[in-house]
Amino acid sequence: MSDSALPRLEVCLSPALLHLYDTKGAVVVIIDVFRATSTIAAALHNGATCVIPVASVQECIELGNSIENSITAGERDGKVAEGLQYGNSPSEYPKEFINDRCLVLTTTNGTRLLHMVKDADTIITGAFLNLSAVCDFLVAQKKNVLLGCAAWKDRFNLEDTLFAGAVVNKIKDHFSVNCDSARAANYLFEHSAEGDAITFLRDSSHYKRLSAYGLQGDMEYCATPDLHPVVPILKGKELVIYK
Amino acid sequence: MSDSALPRLEVCLSPALLHLYDTKGAVVVIIDVFRATSTIAAALHNGATCVIPVASVQECIELGNSIENSITAGERDGKVAEGLQYGNSPSEYPKEFINDRCLVLTTTNGTRLLHMVKDADTIITGAFLNLSAVCDFLVAQKKNVLLGCAAWKDRFNLEDTLFAGAVVNKIKDHFSVNCDSARAANYLFEHSAEGDAITFLRDSSHYKRLSAYGLQGDMEYCATPDLHPVVPILKGKELVIYK
Repeated sequence: MSDSALPRLEVCLSPALLHLYDTKGAVVVIIDVFRATSTIAAALHNGATCVIPVASVQECIELGNSIENSITAGERDGKVAEGLQYGNSPSEYPKEFINDRCLVLTTTNGTRLLHMVKDADTIITGAFLNLSAVCDFLVAQKKNVLLGCAAWKDRFNLEDTLFAGAVVNKIKDHFSVNCDSARAANYLFEHSAEGDAITFLRDSSHYKRLSAYGLQGDMEYCATPDLHPVVPILKGKELVIYK
Repeated sequence: MSDSALPRLEVCLSPALLHLYDTKGAVVVIIDVFRATSTIAAALHNGATCVIPVASVQECIELGNSIENSITAGERDGKVAEGLQYGNSPSEYPKEFINDRCLVLTTTNGTRLLHMVKDADTIITGAFLNLSAVCDFLVAQKKNVLLGCAAWKDRFNLEDTLFAGAVVNKIKDHFSVNCDSARAANYLFEHSAEGDAITFLRDSSHYKRLSAYGLQGDMEYCATPDLHPVVPILKGKELVIYK
């Protein structure tokens, strides 16, 4: 898993480790499987004009007020946050609802990581729902890649790492991989979860947390590969479909 | 893997994540498999009166000068550091050499983590060489446990994580485990490396780095379970055998 003539592929397991990686000129993939980057893939694939990730509920409300045909969304503790209109579930954004609208979305872990990356060439978002599209994009770019797990309040989590492993597994032959995080993520995916991520993820902290809110269906959906084959790419402050 | 009436078992994958864990009143296991905590187990088991871990070469020299019958040791870039007497290999400390002497050892990653932990009840060191002794100790204490991986310049590494997984695997029934790092470490150990850690570790960054210095034999030795069944415990600034 190493050939120095190829671009570099690395995995960052937590935003608290981001400073260890050189993202200059690289493609950075923001990963927040449960559920921000899953919802982003679903909304864009179902016709949203853009998704604008913001850090706070207040910012979400203000931006929602200033953009025509926008929807404000975000949860705190598993419920729609006060002052916002919708939640953080990918199934809330079918085509007939989200088409031609802009989704202003506040999430904690994923948004924070996205705003922490300063000097990358390109920032995209990834989740199982757009796994193959993300992989194809990364291979085509021929640039260094950092897979950035949003984690949970900086703590390592299984779902984001597992997705990073799925990406490493699919594209590793096109990159130089000399990164133990990438090796471990690949191993977890290859030996445990290939083809059945959700069974593996049922024994994870986040699954247990969200299950307490009755969100098992959401997580099953989020663990399904390639239902929304788009590449959300950051242009200014907006995530739009890469074309 | 969760029962809240039991003490907590968690894994910290990097010193840069240590602030996320509550170590107050807990037993913290410092893990630096290649090679600091392996050398510590070997030296103490072979009769060293104590091991004093220090951060810098200068501190190592000064302390060595002030302690009778001491040996100064430490490497930088795979060679004995200038001004010190010996290296960081467990095989350098057989009984006929180290018996009744104090080893003043400077290492980078392991020592740094050890000095970062401030409010633990107990600090011990762990490596494959003393795996079962460490596990027995942890079960007997009935306190919260944090397995702290020394990592490599704050980057996740496979060997320390794999050892943490070996410990989780052996003692998890005695603890409440609600920590994705612990789950992942256990998974890596259980599905890949049980009984043959070194084969798994040959594809790791540190193995490749140390192989370039011809240290494969050292790493094979470090990956062998239970050759030195002692529990090194921190008393003041000294690591001594727990009795």
